[in-house]
Amino acid sequence: MNNVKAFCFDVFGTVVDWRTGVAREAEYFFLKHGLSDIDPYEFADAWRDLYQPSMQACRSGERPFTRLDVLHRENLETVLANYKLDVGAMDANELETLCSAWHRLDPWPDVISGLTRLKQKYIIAPASNGNIALMANMAKRAHIPWDLILGAEVTQAYKPAPQAYIRMADILAIAPGAICMVAAHNDDLRGARECGLRTAFVPRPTEHGFGQTKDLAAASDWDIIALDFNDLAEQAGC
Amino acid sequence: MNNVKAFCFDVFGTVVDWRTGVAREAEYFFLKHGLSDIDPYEFADAWRDLYQPSMQACRSGERPFTRLDVLHRENLETVLANYKLDVGAMDANELETLCSAWHRLDPWPDVISGLTRLKQKYIIAPASNGNIALMANMAKRAHIPWDLILGAEVTQAYKPAPQAYIRMADILAIAPGAICMVAAHNDDLRGARECGLRTAFVPRPTEHGFGQTKDLAAASDWDIIALDFNDLAEQAGC
Repeated sequence: MNNVKAFCFDVFGTVVDWRTGVAREAEYFFLKHGLSDIDPYEFADAWRDLYQPSMQACRSGERPFTRLDVLHRENLETVLANYKLDVGAMDANELETLCSAWHRLDPWPDVISGLTRLKQKYIIAPASNGNIALMANMAKRAHIPWDLILGAEVTQAYKPAPQAYIRMADILAIAPGAICMVAAHNDDLRGARECGLRTAFVPRPTEHGFGQTKDLAAASDWDIIALDFNDLAEQAGC
Repeated sequence: MNNVKAFCFDVFGTVVDWRTGVAREAEYFFLKHGLSDIDPYEFADAWRDLYQPSMQACRSGERPFTRLDVLHRENLETVLANYKLDVGAMDANELETLCSAWHRLDPWPDVISGLTRLKQKYIIAPASNGNIALMANMAKRAHIPWDLILGAEVTQAYKPAPQAYIRMADILAIAPGAICMVAAHNDDLRGARECGLRTAFVPRPTEHGFGQTKDLAAASDWDIIALDFNDLAEQAGC
């Protein structure tokens, strides 16, 4: 790991707690519309369940690369319809506000301190499937100290497609082996390792709520296995 | 200007003093090669003179979009050859180091304080013809506190082509009229205004050295005409 120059981060789940953040705004939306019988956490999960299939259409070439903000909006309408709600009767601005809940997610408590330490020595950037504006607005609101914003819109590829990692290294002009991908998801790290990147696993055991069964532990001998971002900084010599 | 959400900056000349920075590294290179009779400032100017023509080939569609690091390297070989030097006999790593002088330019003295103030209230980003790695490395070294890095490689267009401004607004998901382009160059602001952006002029009267004749003053009624970045922050209510 001595030659690593940049740490690139998965964001949804790894840096921010998307489930709590989306549920918080969904709860407000449902209360306002007299729909308080809908569990906002279940709703957040249902919305998120459409995430991978919607990106898969772009990965497979079935549709051209499309920003996550657009996919999130399409998926929001789908999930509301699945709840038997009349999306057409809803105010477009209110739907847009709910959709932009993804721009207002809070980082896990160790993130700002850990990233601030890592930033002293390394380039730090999100390597998220989120689009540029989404990442920029999130970082601005939560004071996430990225050096620059990378990710799907910059590489025009959704992880774990190899191009998402390979183009990132090319854009940074840093060899893949001098970039460390950080994620709470083993499949993301598998994709990164296959492209020659270094890998760091940070578990987020409540990303999917209490009772989570997936990604509770490292599934391989990743280069770093850390408790949280402060431990990651420590292990990276910061 | 009340609805402005983001300030986007020209970089070479406006944020950093490219001429002094390039001359400094060229002087070292020439001393090392026993070429101390070459004036490093004249050399920097000659290298920079190839900048616009090389981008013009991309703007016109004569060649596909090509990163500025690549154009800088091609132009370096051309300018060395123009000085009757044998580029082929030079060490490739040394040429690469000289070429990356553009990554190690210093900001004008008012930049860090002015940007730090603006960042409290606005999104701040470079909208440079420089590529992403160039901007990221420059910012990391000089502690330029960008929120994100935009510019030619992100938009795949070289200013003042309209797509450079229009795609930037689209990527930020901010209306053009809520973005203020900041530059020491009237033609950059003209391009931005034609695309509906707000404009701020900050003069850099020694960008081209003492005796500069171009861009000494605002050539139009730009939305803001500031003395420097601190005055810009002041006028922007920071």
